[in-house]
Amino acid sequence: MHVVVNAAMSADGKLSTRRREQVAISGPEDFDRVDALRADVDAVMVGVGTVLADNPSLTLDDPALVREREDAGESPHPARVVADSHARTPPDAKLLDGTAETFVLVAEEEPIEHRETLEEAGATVVVAGENRVALPEALDELASHGVERLMVEGGGELIFSLFDAGLVDELSVFVAPKIIGGRDAPTLADGDGFVGDFPDLELAGVERIDDGVLLEYDCE
Amino acid sequence: MHVVVNAAMSADGKLSTRRREQVAISGPEDFDRVDALRADVDAVMVGVGTVLADNPSLTLDDPALVREREDAGESPHPARVVADSHARTPPDAKLLDGTAETFVLVAEEEPIEHRETLEEAGATVVVAGENRVALPEALDELASHGVERLMVEGGGELIFSLFDAGLVDELSVFVAPKIIGGRDAPTLADGDGFVGDFPDLELAGVERIDDGVLLEYDCE
Repeated sequence: MHVVVNAAMSADGKLSTRRREQVAISGPEDFDRVDALRADVDAVMVGVGTVLADNPSLTLDDPALVREREDAGESPHPARVVADSHARTPPDAKLLDGTAETFVLVAEEEPIEHRETLEEAGATVVVAGENRVALPEALDELASHGVERLMVEGGGELIFSLFDAGLVDELSVFVAPKIIGGRDAPTLADGDGFVGDFPDLELAGVERIDDGVLLEYDCE
Repeated sequence: MHVVVNAAMSADGKLSTRRREQVAISGPEDFDRVDALRADVDAVMVGVGTVLADNPSLTLDDPALVREREDAGESPHPARVVADSHARTPPDAKLLDGTAETFVLVAEEEPIEHRETLEEAGATVVVAGENRVALPEALDELASHGVERLMVEGGGELIFSLFDAGLVDELSVFVAPKIIGGRDAPTLADGDGFVGDFPDLELAGVERIDDGVLLEYDCE
């Protein structure tokens, strides 16, 4: 499976404020780029923190992109994936609205009733890992459902976990000309962090878009 | 006074690991650029956290730059400044080695003995602000000592405080192709963070250097 992480951050590496409130970080050109990137993958993934904070739909915005997918014999929208060890996705979350298939990845220890609640809300539940989602196994399971290209839109906890598991192939970051600050504000890669053996990236592209810059990296 | 903030961060906005251990973020080309930038200012400033973690000397590395300053009738090295509300700078810190003048900015509530210890170690103590250094007043005091151009090298607490006080004129950030991660790792701008009225920057320059990219911003 090919995994592309895409995010927009402030010049100081923040995805939002310490209150986890969404901040307009991207501009219109970056928004269109992200929409096109979504149209090009089989599934779009976020962590449950992003679902709880932002309630995103993760569907395509541009009807032309939907038509292109349909003309190619694909589903109108890419599937949606939530990394959600403890099954905290609300059954009325936007990404369970039925517009596209939605996978919720949960840990084994999660009570069967929670899984059933999610399934009743329309989710396909994938169980992997004892008390936290084991991402390598979960992604293998997604691959068996036909997900060959996966786009990850955050948040920082999920992005760190994917780097920690060596699962990231590409990273695209739009860097906005803005300072958010905050020692407790979420960053592009949170988690415990590395203290050595840092993942090395290769800077593959630098492009000015909107009033910021898009940095594209290949990961080993 | 003209204030330039200069820092090197990972692609995810970190200045070092959660353990505050220095990580090789810059390459040789960026190192030379920073040395030249130091040679061009009257003083180089860091927060006390940086002194305690890294014990930097903040002096010029390239003897040619030292000679250029001397030929222009300036001090061999720029002065050094520590923002140190509670006078925690160790008397044997490298930046009290006498190679250049060193200002330590402390708060008024700090006991006079602590100030005297720093003065005995060779520091010029600047007192401003009740229980935390008041940066606007402290910078005015530095200006009265002839500091017209100030370069700030971090850490994230000081950088945030300067943005919060509206004192930053330029920001230069070298972004390394590396992921450090960590919700507790220091970032380019820490502090409490903004929740609205984010400082807007203007992206003035984008340049690939070493294996990363240098982003230069003008601040309003």
